[in-house]
Amino acid sequence: MNFADYLPIWNELSSQQKAHIESASETRKVSKGTILYNGNIDCLGLVLVCSGQIRAYILSDEGREVTISRFFEYDICFFSASCVMPSMQFNIVVEAEKDSEICIIPACLYKNLMDESMPVMSYSNKLISGSFSDLMWLVEQIMWKSIDKRLAAFLLEESAVEGSNILPITHEKIGNHMGTAREVVTRMLKYFQSEGMVKLTRGTVEITDEGKLRDLCE
Amino acid sequence: MNFADYLPIWNELSSQQKAHIESASETRKVSKGTILYNGNIDCLGLVLVCSGQIRAYILSDEGREVTISRFFEYDICFFSASCVMPSMQFNIVVEAEKDSEICIIPACLYKNLMDESMPVMSYSNKLISGSFSDLMWLVEQIMWKSIDKRLAAFLLEESAVEGSNILPITHEKIGNHMGTAREVVTRMLKYFQSEGMVKLTRGTVEITDEGKLRDLCE
Repeated sequence: MNFADYLPIWNELSSQQKAHIESASETRKVSKGTILYNGNIDCLGLVLVCSGQIRAYILSDEGREVTISRFFEYDICFFSASCVMPSMQFNIVVEAEKDSEICIIPACLYKNLMDESMPVMSYSNKLISGSFSDLMWLVEQIMWKSIDKRLAAFLLEESAVEGSNILPITHEKIGNHMGTAREVVTRMLKYFQSEGMVKLTRGTVEITDEGKLRDLCE
Repeated sequence: MNFADYLPIWNELSSQQKAHIESASETRKVSKGTILYNGNIDCLGLVLVCSGQIRAYILSDEGREVTISRFFEYDICFFSASCVMPSMQFNIVVEAEKDSEICIIPACLYKNLMDESMPVMSYSNKLISGSFSDLMWLVEQIMWKSIDKRLAAFLLEESAVEGSNILPITHEKIGNHMGTAREVVTRMLKYFQSEGMVKLTRGTVEITDEGKLRDLCE
């Protein structure tokens, strides 16, 4: 585990701080679907994504989901450390979206580092600000964009993530990402199919006209 | 202007830092409707609300609005200083919702203070985290709550802000707060009226059954 690859502030830390992180952090393999943090589980810490894919989402009382952020290789998820951030009060679930390898910097250690190190505090500030901007973007999407545009954008994002035009994803999963009922997703996908933009088979969505999907987004 | 009343970290600043703030800050009277910041105007700074009411909102390409935050006496609006926050990238408009008296700590001064003072950096962190939690709450409202519940909650909030059951507000203004079309607000208010929860007159909404509105929210 080479922390310098993950933490841009690594070289601004003291030798002692580096040693603390190296000795207290834990590398873990988690399989797809593992819940890493749900706001009730003991405060976890900062999650560094070594490989795989992590998703943070909120959950309604009725069990509906909407994806807030997704984290890929070299990304850092701080939602699982929000328990040590001042004034952070919300429930969020962090799960492995694929089989992943993660490294956890424990919450208490991270909090101490924030309190004693200006670079760490400043970096935390940057992480939160970045997530704030992402969340603002999500609000704009939800408020101003119609479902067809959001679905087209999601399919293109997913295609970029998977590096393929054939997406092994159910309509229900898509609904969970977008915070939309499965029926609405199915109806819209059938419309996309009738327009030649996608081809639907059991358990997959194949993008057949990327350009047309992209036009729809813009 | 007694900064200690507004800035919880005032006593953690050096005499020199305090003097800088006192000499560089500007107290301003702004009338209702004044745009203080719109993401294009030169980076403003931290806005301390001495009296009145400030609103931060986002705007769609079609001119639709949705309120992100409202700031009252003793509140601090950092959206107008987001230009100096790292990784903050979004467009937001900050306006005086009522005639207000504000004090502005200029962006460049605030940035310098953040860079040199751990308490200021930590406090900024707290401000952003708090706004992040508020925004998360808004996302939950938009995603999970139906329009009737959101409207009932808005009327109750507005009544608490105004200290009155008679709200001098147009249906369009309500729509702008909620990010909803005026027609939808009007239809819902008429339904509320038929249920005896409000009484509508030209330019005002009177809450006639607070309990029933409250029941609807919960």
